[in-house]
Amino acid sequence: MAGARVSLTALDGLPLIKAGDDLASLLAEALRCAGIAPANGDIVVVAQKIVSKAEGRAVALADVKPSPRALAVAADVRKDPRLVELILAESNEIIRQAPDVLIVEHRRGFVMANAGVDQSNVDADGAHALLLPVDADASAATLKARLDRAFGVDFGIVINDSFGRPWRKGVVGVAIGAAGVPALVSMVGRPDLVGRKMRVTEVAFADELAAAASLVMGQSDEGRAAVHLRGARHEGAASAAATLLRPKETDLFR
Amino acid sequence: MAGARVSLTALDGLPLIKAGDDLASLLAEALRCAGIAPANGDIVVVAQKIVSKAEGRAVALADVKPSPRALAVAADVRKDPRLVELILAESNEIIRQAPDVLIVEHRRGFVMANAGVDQSNVDADGAHALLLPVDADASAATLKARLDRAFGVDFGIVINDSFGRPWRKGVVGVAIGAAGVPALVSMVGRPDLVGRKMRVTEVAFADELAAAASLVMGQSDEGRAAVHLRGARHEGAASAAATLLRPKETDLFR
Repeated sequence: MAGARVSLTALDGLPLIKAGDDLASLLAEALRCAGIAPANGDIVVVAQKIVSKAEGRAVALADVKPSPRALAVAADVRKDPRLVELILAESNEIIRQAPDVLIVEHRRGFVMANAGVDQSNVDADGAHALLLPVDADASAATLKARLDRAFGVDFGIVINDSFGRPWRKGVVGVAIGAAGVPALVSMVGRPDLVGRKMRVTEVAFADELAAAASLVMGQSDEGRAAVHLRGARHEGAASAAATLLRPKETDLFR
Repeated sequence: MAGARVSLTALDGLPLIKAGDDLASLLAEALRCAGIAPANGDIVVVAQKIVSKAEGRAVALADVKPSPRALAVAADVRKDPRLVELILAESNEIIRQAPDVLIVEHRRGFVMANAGVDQSNVDADGAHALLLPVDADASAATLKARLDRAFGVDFGIVINDSFGRPWRKGVVGVAIGAAGVPALVSMVGRPDLVGRKMRVTEVAFADELAAAASLVMGQSDEGRAAVHLRGARHEGAASAAATLLRPKETDLFR
């Protein structure tokens, strides 16, 4: 394809999001504010934080009573026992623990630090922590249905978060929810540049979308929590971000 | 920043690359072909394959004599012993081996499958394998120096490859070489949206650039092996992709 081009635009018309906000309406308004005329195949990447906030997933730490297990883990990993209580409640199991490190399998299968429980961007005094959406794939599907209807086009939606990785420093944007895009794209049987069959069999398309959007969102105080992306070609059936989870039995690093 | 925007454009004026090609000149020509007027801060993401090819890193498998160790590992992982010989020669150590899986620490520190040794996109009959560049950070620095001089601007260069990950299916674009961009961006001490100090301390900026470019490159037969990226804001001193490597001693998954 000649001149393949992808563009990403921050939807900075979005206000600060609070519990109960109608995020789909606010995203539609932000798309209009940005002067974007949505087209089929356009993708909106939404930061997990604003989805969680809209869904009322902030928890007052004062209301959390740590269990004996949370107290023991907290002592080992040097974190607030109330945070650890929330993390454990959001997790299937602990994968690794060490001072300042608590890597778990989140109840939806993501292997990640702190089950995504986060004190930043919630309130200035740290009195609340924010949990991941109950089901980010379902959240993405809902946003897609609403935006599709609002504009009469076929959107892709990705909900992204920032994950650390083994072996490499720094966090990267990762998809925790997806709708209307194939989260994983199979390359099996496609010819490469010189006609050999591809050996790389699957591309984590939704994760690449999530990482690309992170470039525009930034991590800091700028509040660019949603990004419109156009031009990323995708083929194949849409699939949820849960498709990206490697089964525990086939993972050599569990 | 109002209307933050990132755009990525495939440089499809690039010919098929062969050993000895002057890649910097070809990239400069491809930028001109694409009608791009380079500006300070523009980033060119180049696929590892074409850097390796230009640097003559293709090896004829017929010339490879597997060692006894390579034969033993090959039997275990069910790969061509000559490929395994090349992989081991490119590696510091094996991290995991299992049928169809050989994850190593590449001699430059990347933990990756097969030390990046690849038979796709080299020749149709599979007679050659392609190794990673000898030093992709040095390759990136050379490309930067040449492109900076050609256009009189300050470029960023990222050399990307596709890596699999633990816990998640699919490959994503990752930086194996970088020049003129901070590979890792520190967020320490920056305020978040509500004025709390950030707890996420580092973003793998070069990896997010690499993943974003992968969206445009595709993985298959399209030959879009270089991408021009504009609008990704970066602050802080440039650093090499080697900065992204987590020291073995501090890695809980080695």
